[in-house]
Amino acid sequence: MTPVTEKVESPFPTRARDGSDVCELLPLGEYLYLKLAQIGTKTIFGVPGDFNLSLLELLYTQKVKDSGLKWVGCCNELNAAYAADGYSRYTNRVGCVVTTYGVGELSALNGIAGAFAENIKLLHVVGVPPTKYNTLNHNIHHLVPRLKYSNLLAPNKEVYMEMVNEKVCCFYANITDLNQARWQIEIAIKHIFQYNLPAYIFIPTDFQDALIPISVNEHLSREDIMPIEEIVEIPLLPSLEMVSVCDYILSLLYSSKTPCIIGDILVERFGVTKQINDLIHKTKLWNFSTFMSKGVLNESNPYYQGVYFGKLSQDHIVKKIQMCDLIIHFGVVENEINTGYYSFNYKPDSVLIQIHPDYVRITQFQHNIRTDYKGIEFRTFVDMVTKGVQPNSINTTYNRLFSPSSHAYLFPLEQEEDGPISHDYLETIIPRYINPGDVVVCETGSIQFTMVNTRLSSDVEYITQGFYLSIGMAIPASLGIGMAMRDYPNLHLSKKSSHSNVPPNYKPRLILLEGDGAAQMTVQEITNIIKYKIPIEILLLNNQGYTIERAIKGADKEFNDICEWNWPQLLNGLGGNLDETKNKYKFFSTTELYEKLKQLKDYPGKETFSFVEVILNKLNIPTTLIKMASELEHKETK
Amino acid sequence: MTPVTEKVESPFPTRARDGSDVCELLPLGEYLYLKLAQIGTKTIFGVPGDFNLSLLELLYTQKVKDSGLKWVGCCNELNAAYAADGYSRYTNRVGCVVTTYGVGELSALNGIAGAFAENIKLLHVVGVPPTKYNTLNHNIHHLVPRLKYSNLLAPNKEVYMEMVNEKVCCFYANITDLNQARWQIEIAIKHIFQYNLPAYIFIPTDFQDALIPISVNEHLSREDIMPIEEIVEIPLLPSLEMVSVCDYILSLLYSSKTPCIIGDILVERFGVTKQINDLIHKTKLWNFSTFMSKGVLNESNPYYQGVYFGKLSQDHIVKKIQMCDLIIHFGVVENEINTGYYSFNYKPDSVLIQIHPDYVRITQFQHNIRTDYKGIEFRTFVDMVTKGVQPNSINTTYNRLFSPSSHAYLFPLEQEEDGPISHDYLETIIPRYINPGDVVVCETGSIQFTMVNTRLSSDVEYITQGFYLSIGMAIPASLGIGMAMRDYPNLHLSKKSSHSNVPPNYKPRLILLEGDGAAQMTVQEITNIIKYKIPIEILLLNNQGYTIERAIKGADKEFNDICEWNWPQLLNGLGGNLDETKNKYKFFSTTELYEKLKQLKDYPGKETFSFVEVILNKLNIPTTLIKMASELEHKETK
Ligand SMILES: Cc1ncc(C[n+]2csc(CCOP(=O)(O)OP(=O)(O)O)c2C)c(N)n1
Ligand SMILES: Cc1ncc(C[n+]2csc(CCOP(=O)(O)OP(=O)(O)O)c2C)c(N)n1
Repeated sequence: MTPVTEKVESPFPTRARDGSDVCELLPLGEYLYLKLAQIGTKTIFGVPGDFNLSLLELLYTQKVKDSGLKWVGCCNELNAAYAADGYSRYTNRVGCVVTTYGVGELSALNGIAGAFAENIKLLHVVGVPPTKYNTLNHNIHHLVPRLKYSNLLAPNKEVYMEMVNEKVCCFYANITDLNQARWQIEIAIKHIFQYNLPAYIFIPTDFQDALIPISVNEHLSREDIMPIEEIVEIPLLPSLEMVSVCDYILSLLYSSKTPCIIGDILVERFGVTKQINDLIHKTKLWNFSTFMSKGVLNESNPYYQGVYFGKLSQDHIVKKIQMCDLIIHFGVVENEINTGYYSFNYKPDSVLIQIHPDYVRITQFQHNIRTDYKGIEFRTFVDMVTKGVQPNSINTTYNRLFSPSSHAYLFPLEQEEDGPISHDYLETIIPRYINPGDVVVCETGSIQFTMVNTRLSSDVEYITQGFYLSIGMAIPASLGIGMAMRDYPNLHLSKKSSHSNVPPNYKPRLILLEGDGAAQMTVQEITNIIKYKIPIEILLLNNQGYTIERAIKGADKEFNDICEWNWPQLLNGLGGNLDETKNKYKFFSTTELYEKLKQLKDYPGKETFSFVEVILNKLNIPTTLIKMASELEHKETK
Repeated sequence: MTPVTEKVESPFPTRARDGSDVCELLPLGEYLYLKLAQIGTKTIFGVPGDFNLSLLELLYTQKVKDSGLKWVGCCNELNAAYAADGYSRYTNRVGCVVTTYGVGELSALNGIAGAFAENIKLLHVVGVPPTKYNTLNHNIHHLVPRLKYSNLLAPNKEVYMEMVNEKVCCFYANITDLNQARWQIEIAIKHIFQYNLPAYIFIPTDFQDALIPISVNEHLSREDIMPIEEIVEIPLLPSLEMVSVCDYILSLLYSSKTPCIIGDILVERFGVTKQINDLIHKTKLWNFSTFMSKGVLNESNPYYQGVYFGKLSQDHIVKKIQMCDLIIHFGVVENEINTGYYSFNYKPDSVLIQIHPDYVRITQFQHNIRTDYKGIEFRTFVDMVTKGVQPNSINTTYNRLFSPSSHAYLFPLEQEEDGPISHDYLETIIPRYINPGDVVVCETGSIQFTMVNTRLSSDVEYITQGFYLSIGMAIPASLGIGMAMRDYPNLHLSKKSSHSNVPPNYKPRLILLEGDGAAQMTVQEITNIIKYKIPIEILLLNNQGYTIERAIKGADKEFNDICEWNWPQLLNGLGGNLDETKNKYKFFSTTELYEKLKQLKDYPGKETFSFVEVILNKLNIPTTLIKMASELEHKETK
């Protein structure tokens, strides 16, 4: 109880926790921004509101400006969350969304849940009322009152935090103590990278400007971006158990005759895409992706077999997978969609190795033996396996080379017969229209089930929300992806593999495959794509409503109809510059569409904002979707 | 354990619970729809999804068609929730929104929270996965996995229910037992009316088609709509305590010299608007409304004084309220906004009577005595007070008549000097542009603080979200209100008072006062207003961004800017039929605006869809908003 003790406890020490000198005091909000810049977030998305205005003001300090951090204000908060999600999907860094108490944070919630469901690194920063309100019996605007006696009792100021805590975030911090604040921010960031899940930070309006001491060692304005290993503090040395599990797996591989690799979506989320693609390059093993991971593997590798999707897969893929006696499934995600309604099915005498961030599981079907290894650090382990493998020790008996399916990417863009546009046609033409290295965003809807059967050109980044399946996500996500492509030019090429085929001077295009029903959910966000001059080619698939739902039920019911829009006019309203007197935007026949896509492919970048409305019959349904719908129908009601 | 017992327990008895005959078996979903029609819900809003398609299919049975229940599919779920909210605000019946699991229900959540915060009767019906999934370890699409070991543990199927339970609803029912289902639906409806709050019903896909027995006494397809008293089962006879509290209040009134009435928003929510307006008519007492209740009192009554808003009120209003020795505050809502930051302030020797659904509170400031009476049924009590009062026993000493303020509604629409359009000008012109009996929807934003100082024509229905303040609400709410006006023509006139001044053949207009920033949040929903040919006049106040936020902070910061839109083109994209070559849509000067508003006022209904873009300076801020912003600033940071 000496005065000295009191001094140490003060929030403004002259020495930092590590004993080094404090070089300056920074407002908490500014610290948060610099921290974000330090871990590689260069654009943040959001909407202002009464409780975050002062936090947003801090975006304009010299230090934050120097850090390069930019603000993109979205039309609404759900869109902002989707944009941040897209930003993270492309960069594999933290997408950040800033909203205001209640009205803003709840509007964003569906976007956060989607990020949680799909392991996206998101930080949701919410400006909340000042802590001094805690002692007041006040019903604050944007805050729901108590269920009963609403006027008599103080409302629960933390009601919205309770909604998300342990449900759609891996961590949340309500900043109410300056001594804890910095630690809370650090932990939030660390957790996001460690679990690949969203976290929340709630900043009361009396805290963003509170000063915290910064030590000389923090390098807040260092030039380079902090590597992930440093953020999550991945142990440098693998454990003994890891070594023996790795050896065991490799021995299984060496004794296998027909081994294969499934590269699943956590490969991408945990940043080991390059390792897996390099492994494939080195081992020449048959490889498959999953519904969620489509595009993670470089599909132009000659050993690529397609998307394995259980009984929803194409027949030739099922046949191939059932030839395999060893399946090494990296970055497993087991859910209804990714497993084709839990219908993955292997040869009775095969061995399945599932490598997941929480476990390594080895299943020997013949002997009905399943062994789980836990506590194995995923990134280190994948590294170890991929580096340890000796290609010469592999003895496969199958033909390693892919037999190209009828519409492989290698084919030139060629016109087929004229006729109405159908999903079958899109399945042949879209993969050819995409160039190596392009970035393709695919909206939830029937088009996903067409794309799943395509083979993509080399180094294509393919982004879709394959499990949470919230429609409308793709437009704002494209804004986020577009900003990310600007912040990190060509990142996806170097992230994908060490053997990119893309000419060094090629400028990857951003292509959005969008459904008309989904588009109506979030259409206004196109305005920011236009405002920020993000080069994009939007293919809007107009099949007059919710075709994917028609495939399930109510094929002709009004509830699956949507309003008819005049898209070029709408886009012009949003700031587009479409000239209907000079150009065509609506395409009814394969010939017309072919000409347009050819033009876009051959002269990429001629227009910044390209729009192609593709007219489809409202009951034209991709084959895989028909399979899936009948499966769903069966599951739901039987 | 006899076979007979077994029969009684079966879910399909031949006798209903009341002993009467079962006349038929109905699918649960159909029963829900008929029940909704029975309680006066004629339009429901929503978006389809995998888990509600079969429920939506039941909209097309002969019985449901005959009931007149209609479906309006919205562009997204937040919009649907707002529309249902608007529907309830106008009808004072249940607004219903139907969404799908996760993606849909979470998207709607902010709308539900707003309804909860503002005592709106909403039913949120969510289609959820079949109960048979409960026994499976499956990660279902739209459902967030577990926080850890996501692939190994069954997800918590009820995670979304847990988010809302006891937070933003007064009741929720997850239907998992057919024997309970009907009871759950009934209780949900009863609770909604009783508490004026939202409720949730979750219907698994294996339940909407399950048959439940209907008794001959249920009158599901009766022609008339069930009166609220019957739904909530209001006791017919007032309690003895109520009688004595009522007598006491009346005696206070009779001995008061300067009594007044504040009609607050719960008056409207609990359906006693007519009683209060009739009370005012009968007693000729000075009367005030609040920020939230503006428009509830018939502002054309000669004793109407304006909105009391604590220290944010206009000076003459503060002066008047401080003359009062007795304040009878009906339907009190105490929150930050409605009380002008808790600054209601009365004469030191006055008596305040607050009548709230949960309590009657009498405060004698002089003696510092506060008495609470609980358990008094609000509707019955208000009825009793308003019927019991003897106008002849009232002895007021003040001049009962209102001294009309400079821009009272009675003035004709007259042009003032030409010049740029400002909030001051809007404050004078908008009230004159509105005709008696019109319906005005006011978006959250600076315009609310202009409108608060206006006096509205007789019988005007004024709808705004005055406490939760979620921007973007007003466009979809207008869709709901427009449908409600069609379902219940002129309802607001009869709901308001027994002395409507509106000519019987006048067709009330629907006028939307909308901010440009708010509009960008939910703009697409205008498409349904157009599709359903809802006659509307939209005044879009274009002040180039978030002016209300500029008033608080960041006046010139980019985070308060929005994208510039070409509104007529955008609206044409959404199905509008604006012809820029023939008409003007953008108004810069008072003269131009005056001409346009005069035309709309004099020839209402000439165009179904009228659009007026009003250009304001981005820093033109209403005086009341300046007061409020400085108050907020002060509160937040000091
Ligand atoms: C937010 C949200 N609401 C509703 C759904 C249910 N849903 C899934 S796909 C779909 C229709 C998509 O229609 P569209 O974008 O036109 O694509 P299409 O299948 O017609 O090609 C709907 C309504 C959803 N997944 N997400
Ligand atoms: C959903 C939601 N997001 C953010 C806010 C914070 N907010 C309140 S008013 C406002 C600006 C409204 O702008 P506009 O509609 O243009 O009206 P103005 O004040 O400019 O007249 C904002 C962003 C909110 N209330 N609700």
